[in-house]
Amino acid sequence: MSKSIFYHAGCPVCVSAEQDLLNLIGLDHIDVVHIGEEASKITEAENAGVKSVPALVTPNGNVLHINFGASIEDVKA
Amino acid sequence: MSKSIFYHAGCPVCVSAEQDLLNLIGLDHIDVVHIGEEASKITEAENAGVKSVPALVTPNGNVLHINFGASIEDVKA
Repeated sequence: MSKSIFYHAGCPVCVSAEQDLLNLIGLDHIDVVHIGEEASKITEAENAGVKSVPALVTPNGNVLHINFGASIEDVKA
Repeated sequence: MSKSIFYHAGCPVCVSAEQDLLNLIGLDHIDVVHIGEEASKITEAENAGVKSVPALVTPNGNVLHINFGASIEDVKA
């Protein structure tokens, strides 16, 4: 199985969702990207269709936006 | 691992998210509840903290609201 990518910005909502998804999907199947710390990844996230964080991009390219934490526009600002 | 419960109401957003999560988490680890067809489950979902569907209630009781599809109030109406 290809990996999913979990984009987040370090907010409490993000961290909580991250822990849940890591438990459910498994560390081996998910890459975690902190777009607050890795600003270069913001464009990658936007290109994948991420509108807000936390969000999970699945191996087939779908974007699951989870428990609205922050708009990606706010993270860019 | 205990099972997660995926609540949905049959909308396209729900079905898409359902397929992704079933693929990622695995059929054996997730129960799917269609609250549009099983109205008796709406109270159960609300008690679990579900505000909108689709939503995933994790084994530790956290609620992950995914890609806003429909308010649970709309499903009740």
